[in-house]
Amino acid sequence: MGADPRFFPSAGPRRLAEIAAAAEARFAGEAERIFTDVAPLALAGPEDVAFYEGRRHIAALKATRAGAVLLPAGTEGDLPAGTIALICAAPQLAYARVAALFHPRPRPVPGIHPTAVVGEGATIEEGCEIGPFAVIGARAEIGPGCIIGPHAVVGDGCVLGAGCILRSHASLLHCLAGVAVVLNEGARVGGEGYGFVTTPMGEHVTVPQIGRVILGDAVEIGVNACVDRGAGGDTVLGPGTRLDNLVQIGHNVKTGRGCVIVAQVGIAGSAELGDFVVVAAQAGVVGHITVGSKARVGAQAGVMNDVPPGTDVVGSPAWPARETMRAFARLRQLAAAPKKDGTSGGSP
Amino acid sequence: MGADPRFFPSAGPRRLAEIAAAAEARFAGEAERIFTDVAPLALAGPEDVAFYEGRRHIAALKATRAGAVLLPAGTEGDLPAGTIALICAAPQLAYARVAALFHPRPRPVPGIHPTAVVGEGATIEEGCEIGPFAVIGARAEIGPGCIIGPHAVVGDGCVLGAGCILRSHASLLHCLAGVAVVLNEGARVGGEGYGFVTTPMGEHVTVPQIGRVILGDAVEIGVNACVDRGAGGDTVLGPGTRLDNLVQIGHNVKTGRGCVIVAQVGIAGSAELGDFVVVAAQAGVVGHITVGSKARVGAQAGVMNDVPPGTDVVGSPAWPARETMRAFARLRQLAAAPKKDGTSGGSP
Amino acid sequence: MGADPRFFPSAGPRRLAEIAAAAEARFAGEAERIFTDVAPLALAGPEDVAFYEGRRHIAALKATRAGAVLLPAGTEGDLPAGTIALICAAPQLAYARVAALFHPRPRPVPGIHPTAVVGEGATIEEGCEIGPFAVIGARAEIGPGCIIGPHAVVGDGCVLGAGCILRSHASLLHCLAGVAVVLNEGARVGGEGYGFVTTPMGEHVTVPQIGRVILGDAVEIGVNACVDRGAGGDTVLGPGTRLDNLVQIGHNVKTGRGCVIVAQVGIAGSAELGDFVVVAAQAGVVGHITVGSKARVGAQAGVMNDVPPGTDVVGSPAWPARETMRAFARLRQLAAAPKKDGTSGGSP
Repeated sequence: MGADPRFFPSAGPRRLAEIAAAAEARFAGEAERIFTDVAPLALAGPEDVAFYEGRRHIAALKATRAGAVLLPAGTEGDLPAGTIALICAAPQLAYARVAALFHPRPRPVPGIHPTAVVGEGATIEEGCEIGPFAVIGARAEIGPGCIIGPHAVVGDGCVLGAGCILRSHASLLHCLAGVAVVLNEGARVGGEGYGFVTTPMGEHVTVPQIGRVILGDAVEIGVNACVDRGAGGDTVLGPGTRLDNLVQIGHNVKTGRGCVIVAQVGIAGSAELGDFVVVAAQAGVVGHITVGSKARVGAQAGVMNDVPPGTDVVGSPAWPARETMRAFARLRQLAAAPKKDGTSGGSP
Repeated sequence: MGADPRFFPSAGPRRLAEIAAAAEARFAGEAERIFTDVAPLALAGPEDVAFYEGRRHIAALKATRAGAVLLPAGTEGDLPAGTIALICAAPQLAYARVAALFHPRPRPVPGIHPTAVVGEGATIEEGCEIGPFAVIGARAEIGPGCIIGPHAVVGDGCVLGAGCILRSHASLLHCLAGVAVVLNEGARVGGEGYGFVTTPMGEHVTVPQIGRVILGDAVEIGVNACVDRGAGGDTVLGPGTRLDNLVQIGHNVKTGRGCVIVAQVGIAGSAELGDFVVVAAQAGVVGHITVGSKARVGAQAGVMNDVPPGTDVVGSPAWPARETMRAFARLRQLAAAPKKDGTSGGSP
Repeated sequence: MGADPRFFPSAGPRRLAEIAAAAEARFAGEAERIFTDVAPLALAGPEDVAFYEGRRHIAALKATRAGAVLLPAGTEGDLPAGTIALICAAPQLAYARVAALFHPRPRPVPGIHPTAVVGEGATIEEGCEIGPFAVIGARAEIGPGCIIGPHAVVGDGCVLGAGCILRSHASLLHCLAGVAVVLNEGARVGGEGYGFVTTPMGEHVTVPQIGRVILGDAVEIGVNACVDRGAGGDTVLGPGTRLDNLVQIGHNVKTGRGCVIVAQVGIAGSAELGDFVVVAAQAGVVGHITVGSKARVGAQAGVMNDVPPGTDVVGSPAWPARETMRAFARLRQLAAAPKKDGTSGGSP
């Protein structure tokens, strides 16, 4: 069974040869066989293409009713008879390409909904879809082929490149965005950062937040995630960076290319991340530090100091992963060890 | 003093006999006495019903001006003279029932606001209230007696059972919902999960997310909380499951009946929770693991491995609660102990 | 280079004498010199005023092209020749004042957008700006000079003092707000708290949440942050309290004056914070405890017990900061120490 056609009508059918080409997979015979959709191994039927994610799913592989399965060389022996092997180097990537054959990213249905409000001097290029109750600010520039969803708000003067998508209830303010940028539902870009100075009497005086947000090409922002604008100077997310849901990005944060910021992470003001940094769920990075390229921060970690490139850190406060694992093992031992007296721990 | 009538007008007045019946409470005399509202012990007056939450509130009980108090047998001796004892097994539950007499869940005021946008082929059954600027997608099916609040969005093809409530700014996409489902303000159901594959060159390729969200009867989703749809196959929240505010549920998560997921918790993709699991605030559960029925996860815990049914875990990474408490006690001792040399810890 | 005029047109130009007066700074000569904007040290040009944040930025100070710099006495020797020293006691506070000269908080553009929906009996005082698709509930009272942004919702009966701002997509329900209250984008005030009682059969029975939210003067609520209304009695945020983005405040929480609640913090139901409490990012405070005035809670801390006034706590569970630092140092030592046998830790 493929996707529910009420929500995800298939763009198919597709011939096996087309599928294999998209997947960069090799296969034997039946090039003209027709497939109608993709589906998980356990749910796929004879007209569906599935993929094999690895040994955790070996039972599902052996029992699948899929017509064809994307899998790595050497595992095709575990396929049921009659299921076609699509042998490829990276089955999950191949699946992404094949699934996109059947379910390409929705194209805009060009037009401006009669309820949308478009500000003075705004320019909306060809092929855009502007949804019900969308608000486009004065002098905003919307590139060709953008989708502005229901209730989405684009602030005065903002610039969107070609093919951007703002899903329902998203807002984008004080922002220059590249091409193919995606804001998911309720994502908030360009809010006022948490910037104030407290007087000796305890009054919090707001520091005007007069920087922008610069979003590189193909940046994606998760549902209800927040990216504050710069206090002075800009908040910058490098090309290809993806934020998951409920992430918080403080003012003047800068990331390089392709960073992966998982759900509920917080990156405090003026922190800088290199390229391809991964920050796992619920972790935090304090302000004004640097996390080097390809560093990885563990889930729930609390990063309080610079992290060198390529380093893995975990824990709160975060230490290099190896040392931390050793410390935890030791602590667990201590807790398990018999205790000889009441005043000190751990000694035999 | 009962609730502020500007916000919570009482549906009352009610006779004591009615109140006691709703509470399954016993009392002596005055069955016809009239009460107008419920109120906290400390604020209640002679026409209000209050309840006694336990010994933490004994001073408030002794000083209350409430006309009647819901309390367990054996505590009525602490009531001031003239306050009626409503003796019941579970005072808090009894209070919930009595408060609902005075403040029933708001009924829909049937009608479609003239500003609402209803898509082609959508069906809206009898008795629904559709608020200003609501957007109902094409072919959506809204069961009888639903309330779709201001600015709420129901996506194309979605199905809502009877008596569902979408509060203001909520969105529900790619979803089949049972009866009496509630989405609080800004709740986001059916967003695109965080699904992509990274090429060797560092490009993140989106995996089309073509699953749905299935919400069981009486599921409730907190304010600004997020539930991603399945990548392939469905994300499922079992009947009676309640999510608090700002919770994140990843793609293909499955929960059983009656789970309690407290504020700011994150459950990563494909994790499975049994029935009546409790996950306390700010905890995280990694993907692809199982948390057994009636397990309880402590606040801020980080669950990285399967949790057996009925087990309590705490800490990050999470351990069984007993072992963790012992380890922390030991660590605290170590910190307090005199240190004999600078190169190793803990030994006398 | 000052702020991008597409987003932040300068209200300037200003004479140096005016700037120095706002900053309470002293300077030598050139009182009539004209400045057009503020800018960071590294980006400022000869017509901009910058400020010096401290020794971390000494290189930027020495290299700045700014026309004038706000800095503390004794550091003016590091300025390049030709840059004017504006010597003041608190340069960051002075900067806030000067930046506000060029970028005052936007004034309302009075008027009610034709698409806005205003409920029966609502009163909107002079000078308010009501944006597109705003919804003002029945009997709501909006004080003079308020800005209600696009898609913002004010619930039935709510009261806003003078000069409040609800940014786009914010909602405010069951709430009495003082003057100059700010809700940032998507902020949600007055949602139903997580209040239910579970029957022995596992059914969750909602406790009607019939309290309000009381927001003191100058309270600010961050982007997508949530403040639940009281269950019975009120949730109260004291004057000047500021919540950062994605913060969660449970029902019946009470804070004093000027509290600082940083991003992604959660404060559980009925917790009470004194005046000027600081809770750093991602920390949690359990319900029904008290955090004394001027206490400070570290990032990611988990506060499970009362915190005395003026105390710093860190860690999860939270301990006083000093003890915790000692314990972590000890743990790190243990992890680093040579281990003599496999069954117990830490002893030489």
